[in-house]
Amino acid sequence: MFISFEGIEGSGKSTALEGLCAVLTQKSLAFTRTREPGGSALGKALRALLLDARNKLASEAELFLYLADRAQHVHEVIRPTLDAGGLVLSDRYADSTIVYQGFGRGLDVSTLFHLNETAVSGLWPDITLLFDLAPEEGLMRAQNRNLRMGTAISEGRFEAEDLAFHKRIREGYLSWAQRHPERFRIVDAAVPPGEVLAQTMAHLQGIF
Amino acid sequence: MFISFEGIEGSGKSTALEGLCAVLTQKSLAFTRTREPGGSALGKALRALLLDARNKLASEAELFLYLADRAQHVHEVIRPTLDAGGLVLSDRYADSTIVYQGFGRGLDVSTLFHLNETAVSGLWPDITLLFDLAPEEGLMRAQNRNLRMGTAISEGRFEAEDLAFHKRIREGYLSWAQRHPERFRIVDAAVPPGEVLAQTMAHLQGIF
Repeated sequence: MFISFEGIEGSGKSTALEGLCAVLTQKSLAFTRTREPGGSALGKALRALLLDARNKLASEAELFLYLADRAQHVHEVIRPTLDAGGLVLSDRYADSTIVYQGFGRGLDVSTLFHLNETAVSGLWPDITLLFDLAPEEGLMRAQNRNLRMGTAISEGRFEAEDLAFHKRIREGYLSWAQRHPERFRIVDAAVPPGEVLAQTMAHLQGIF
Repeated sequence: MFISFEGIEGSGKSTALEGLCAVLTQKSLAFTRTREPGGSALGKALRALLLDARNKLASEAELFLYLADRAQHVHEVIRPTLDAGGLVLSDRYADSTIVYQGFGRGLDVSTLFHLNETAVSGLWPDITLLFDLAPEEGLMRAQNRNLRMGTAISEGRFEAEDLAFHKRIREGYLSWAQRHPERFRIVDAAVPPGEVLAQTMAHLQGIF
């Protein structure tokens, strides 16, 4: 079983993922928690390049770095875990690239879908949880988090974009989710963390 | 004017490029000498990842890293130089990916062509010089060079492949060149360096 967590910056997806992992640990259920970019050894090096706002990347260069990270992640982590019967929980996956590069940066969404098909060799999540939130609220939360934790771990490059960009991301996610209702589940992320986790668990009930 | 240099490891393309640059400098002609991977700041970081034989890269991850390097190289170096009326001489370019990943690793050549089209936004060289040599001879030269200069600068990942791989690369280059006769010029690289340079200059006569 492969579950991905998607949403705008500050949507609380990582917090919900953490909560889910705590619940699974309590129930003694095994899982592999991972993320993109940075889910493999190569990916960690690429994550540093990608999130460094000082790297003036061409849109296409940025896109191919995300795809390289993803291809290695599938090859090294996700596919072997699934083949061994494991549960994979990934903080972001291919939908992030389609939404950020497509709806956000204006690259062709259908081209992006096919590029991702090549990168993941056809492997898509069984369930994708979309944490939906107004970008004004998400950016405020992300800024508070950066202040608390230091800018070093900030997801710098996208947070530096303007509000219009983040509005396109939110709308893009909702529109992309509508096209794939068989695996997308929408979580209302405007409520407190405990309620977000409760919704997350409700969507996954029957699986564990 | 954009000229790329292609060929198997040890084919003498870099030596010929060096000779050409010396001739151009003597004639006080300006040029920008560059290479792939590693033609941009991002590319230097990617080159180190790509050429490190210890990185067990998935074929698709390797491919997308080359494409990211290329996209940034075009965006940051090649396109601006050409727009300013300059001459670009590149040690390897998109044909390397098509031949090594396609004919060498068995990825689909037509898919590779289209991926490269995306990476370079349709920018192909005016002239591509193919330094043709039997792989047995090329590998011997490359090994001697590595012994002389230390393994640190070895183009490790491909040199570690077996002879059958390098034979596919040589045949792949010749077959790909036949499909693009308008820009490919073949140099017989089995002769001494001085004669290789003379052939190179003959192919470019009338340009400078």
